[in-house]
Amino acid sequence: MIGRHLLADLWGIDAARLRDGALLRQCLVDAARVCGLTPVAGPVMHEFPGGGVTGFILLSESHLSLHSYPEKGFLALDLFTCGGSDPRDGLAVFRDRLQPAREDITVQARGRETP
Amino acid sequence: MIGRHLLADLWGIDAARLRDGALLRQCLVDAARVCGLTPVAGPVMHEFPGGGVTGFILLSESHLSLHSYPEKGFLALDLFTCGGSDPRDGLAVFRDRLQPAREDITVQARGRETP
Repeated sequence: MIGRHLLADLWGIDAARLRDGALLRQCLVDAARVCGLTPVAGPVMHEFPGGGVTGFILLSESHLSLHSYPEKGFLALDLFTCGGSDPRDGLAVFRDRLQPAREDITVQARGRETP
Repeated sequence: MIGRHLLADLWGIDAARLRDGALLRQCLVDAARVCGLTPVAGPVMHEFPGGGVTGFILLSESHLSLHSYPEKGFLALDLFTCGGSDPRDGLAVFRDRLQPAREDITVQARGRETP
């Protein structure tokens, strides 16, 4: 296995937080930091006229990304990390700052030599 | 459901192609185009001293990303698209240009209202 990819669909988040590009940017930065990851580009952020925010950090160890839907209270978060770090440590940052009411989490092994 | 997220672990790719940042960048651009997607940032690419390449396009409709491991003949590809486009159309671009010998593909629904 080469990496662990945590896909988090987070619901019931306050819309104002999902429109807050600075907050979401900081979550990406802090999630990378607590996981001990090494950014090589970004965070690259984009704010849509309707209020949604999208962004990513490219890492030595793969990437972190997010896409917010304030009108649905929804955030699609990806924490894809190679090496020894645990992407759940990064998820904890988002839980703490965004307080989702419901989570739908999958952890997918990436790069299994024998599927 | 808000989006479809295709996770492709592609094996048995020629190492020279996995070191070719220009080729991989063009694959991202062309995959976005054939899927009818709208880039809002990138492609942002990073080439590692050891030869691996990592890259990302941020889209109105989520993102495309890749991480290559030339020494393993491996590419981790993500095609995460919201709206009506089919990420398998983008996968076809990578298949055509990179000729993987083996594929390990998952398509994950993102943003299911009732999991």
